[in-house]
Amino acid sequence: MLNKMRSRKVGELALLKGIRSRAARRGGGGLRLGIGDDCALLYQRPGEELAVTTDLSIAGRHFRLEWHPPESVGHRTLARGLSDLAAMGARPLAVFLSIGLPPDLTMAGALVVGKEGARYTASARKTSWFDRFLAGFLALADSFQSPLAGGDLAESPIPIADIVLVGAVPQGRALLRSGARPGDLLYVTGTLGGSSMGLERLGKLMQSGPPRPRRIPQSMQKLLAPHLYPQPRLEQGRFLQRRGLASSAIDLSDGLSTDLSHLCEESGVSAEVDSTALPIHPGATLDQALHGGEDYELLFTARPSARVPRAVAGVPVTRIGRILRARPDRQQAILTTPHGGQALISGGWQHFSGA
Amino acid sequence: MLNKMRSRKVGELALLKGIRSRAARRGGGGLRLGIGDDCALLYQRPGEELAVTTDLSIAGRHFRLEWHPPESVGHRTLARGLSDLAAMGARPLAVFLSIGLPPDLTMAGALVVGKEGARYTASARKTSWFDRFLAGFLALADSFQSPLAGGDLAESPIPIADIVLVGAVPQGRALLRSGARPGDLLYVTGTLGGSSMGLERLGKLMQSGPPRPRRIPQSMQKLLAPHLYPQPRLEQGRFLQRRGLASSAIDLSDGLSTDLSHLCEESGVSAEVDSTALPIHPGATLDQALHGGEDYELLFTARPSARVPRAVAGVPVTRIGRILRARPDRQQAILTTPHGGQALISGGWQHFSGA
Repeated sequence: MLNKMRSRKVGELALLKGIRSRAARRGGGGLRLGIGDDCALLYQRPGEELAVTTDLSIAGRHFRLEWHPPESVGHRTLARGLSDLAAMGARPLAVFLSIGLPPDLTMAGALVVGKEGARYTASARKTSWFDRFLAGFLALADSFQSPLAGGDLAESPIPIADIVLVGAVPQGRALLRSGARPGDLLYVTGTLGGSSMGLERLGKLMQSGPPRPRRIPQSMQKLLAPHLYPQPRLEQGRFLQRRGLASSAIDLSDGLSTDLSHLCEESGVSAEVDSTALPIHPGATLDQALHGGEDYELLFTARPSARVPRAVAGVPVTRIGRILRARPDRQQAILTTPHGGQALISGGWQHFSGA
Repeated sequence: MLNKMRSRKVGELALLKGIRSRAARRGGGGLRLGIGDDCALLYQRPGEELAVTTDLSIAGRHFRLEWHPPESVGHRTLARGLSDLAAMGARPLAVFLSIGLPPDLTMAGALVVGKEGARYTASARKTSWFDRFLAGFLALADSFQSPLAGGDLAESPIPIADIVLVGAVPQGRALLRSGARPGDLLYVTGTLGGSSMGLERLGKLMQSGPPRPRRIPQSMQKLLAPHLYPQPRLEQGRFLQRRGLASSAIDLSDGLSTDLSHLCEESGVSAEVDSTALPIHPGATLDQALHGGEDYELLFTARPSARVPRAVAGVPVTRIGRILRARPDRQQAILTTPHGGQALISGGWQHFSGA
C-alpha cells in the first residue's frame, strides 16, 4: 500500500504525503477506508458483484517518455482500466495505482531529450513529471467518481505503472464477451482509428528536426486528443447493462480486428463486418480503424429485436455488422467491401516494441 | 487483463494460454469469472466488505535475479500481499498478477551470471524463469485458497511484478492500525529477524567466489527459509478478527521499528517495547529483529483484559510491550533494556537500493 514505504528517503516520504493529501480530498465511489492502512476497505450495494481489472503500462512499450505529455500518460494509464469496467457495464468503486519511477521523475525538473533518450534535470521552476502524471490521472478519476484508494510506490530504472480498477455490477448482469449468438447485430460506439492516427501524427511531430523537448502546438491538440486523452465509455456500458440491450461486449483496446476475434472466440461464433458502415474517425484510414487499437470504444452485440439507440450520452452508436454461425472452414470474421468479402485477420495493436 | 495481449507473438500467446490453463484448474475463494473477459467477477458473503491491497516488486530492489530462486520470487511477491490481508483479518477472495518481463525470462533456459549481471540463455532442458516463478506463486496461492483471477503481462526491460489481493472481512470488523489505546498490550506472532538474517547469509553465499549460477545447498535451506519463503499469518489474523481480540494490527514488512511507528502514528499513541521479551529468531541479532523487515509477522495490540493465547494455529504469540499515551516530548516508541530505556527510532527495511 502507498503508506508502506520501504525507504526512509525524505523525498519519497514527502511524495507519498502529497499523494495521500491529494487522494484524500476525493470521495465518492465505494471507499470506506483509503490510503493509510494495510488494505483499503470497499463496500458495494446489496445484490452487486465485483468487477476487477488490472493493466500494466511500461515506458517504451505503452508510452514514450519523450513523446507523451506526463498528463497524457496518467490519463491513458487510468483510461485502460476504466474501459475494462465499461465493457462489463460496471460502475467504478475505487482505483489503485502501483508505480515504479526513476528518482529524477519525482523531482521538480525539466525534460531534456538527447540522442541517448529522455531524462529529467532538476529545476525549481518546474513541477515534476510525476506531479503532472498524477494531475492527468486524478482529473480522469474525478470525472468518473473513482477515488484513488491506494497502491504502491517504488524506485524503478524505467517508469512503470500498474492500474487496478474495482467496480460493481448487479449480480449475474455483467456484460460478457461470451454472450453473442448467430443473428445478433454488431455495434460500436464513437469512431474508430482516431487514436492510431493521432499516434502516427505525434510520432511525426516528435521526430521532425533535432531531438529536443517539443510542445504539442495548440493547433494539433484536437487532432491528437483521441490518442492522448481517450474517453472510456463508462456511461454507455452502464446504459447497455441497465437496459439489458447487449448480448455481449468488449472494449476496443487492441483494435477492432483483434478484439472482435476475442469476442467471437469466447462466444463460439463468427462475424461479418461491413467496411462501408464503419464510423472511421475523420482523417484516419480504414486500416487504422480496423487494426489501430487504443480507441477504447465499446464493441457489442444485440439481438435483432433490441432497440439500440443511435447515440448514448452524446456518443454515436453505429451498427457495423452481424454475428454468424462459426464454421470450421471459415475465418472467425469476414470484412465485406463493395468489391466482395475477405477474411478479417487479427492485426491489432503491437505497441511501440512491435513498430 | 491477461487475455488482452498487445502482441501477436506466438511465444507470448502460448505463455498466456499456459497461465490460463494453470489458473483455471484452481478454484476456491470468491471467484465467479476468472481469466477470459475484460474483468474478473468476484462475490462475497452478505455483511462482508472488501479489503484490497497492491504490492509492487522490482528486480534489483525487492529481489535479485542472481540471488533469489525464481520460486522464491514468486512466493515472496504473493506473500507481501497476503500479509496485508492477514493484518486486516481478511480472507482472500482472489489474486491478480501484473508482470513485466524481458522475453528471455519466459523462454526455457538456464541462468548465466557474469560480471555484467544475470541473464538467461535458451536451453530446451530447462523450464523458464517465469515457469518457476509461477510455480512458487501458485503453490502459495493454493495453500491459502487464493485463485489467480487475472492480471496483465507485458514485455519489460527489467522484471517487475505487481500483485493485487482482494479479500473479504465482516463489515466494520476489520483489524485497523488506528485502534490502539494507552494501556493496551503489544504482541507479535512468530519470531523476528529471521528474514533479515537469511538475506545476509544468502548474500554472503552468492558473493563468495567468482560469479556463476549457485544452488542453495540443502544444508542452508532451513536457515534461509524465513527470507525465501516467509509465511503470511492469515490464520492468525482471522483468529484475532473473529474473536475480537486485537484493538489494532499491522504486518511486519518494513521492520518492527518502522511498522510500530506507523501503528503509533495512526492510533495517536506511543509504545514501549521490552528488548528482553522479543522473540528473536535463532541466529538473528537484536538489530535484525528490530529493524530487519520482511518477517511478515503480525504486530497487534489488545486490551489488558483480552485473553490472548500463547499460540494460534501453531505459531507462537509473544507479548513484547505496551501502549503509552503520546506526549509531545517523547519519541513515539521506547525500547527498554536491562540497562535502561532508549528511543526506538524507525530504521526499517530499505531493500537493496538502500544497502
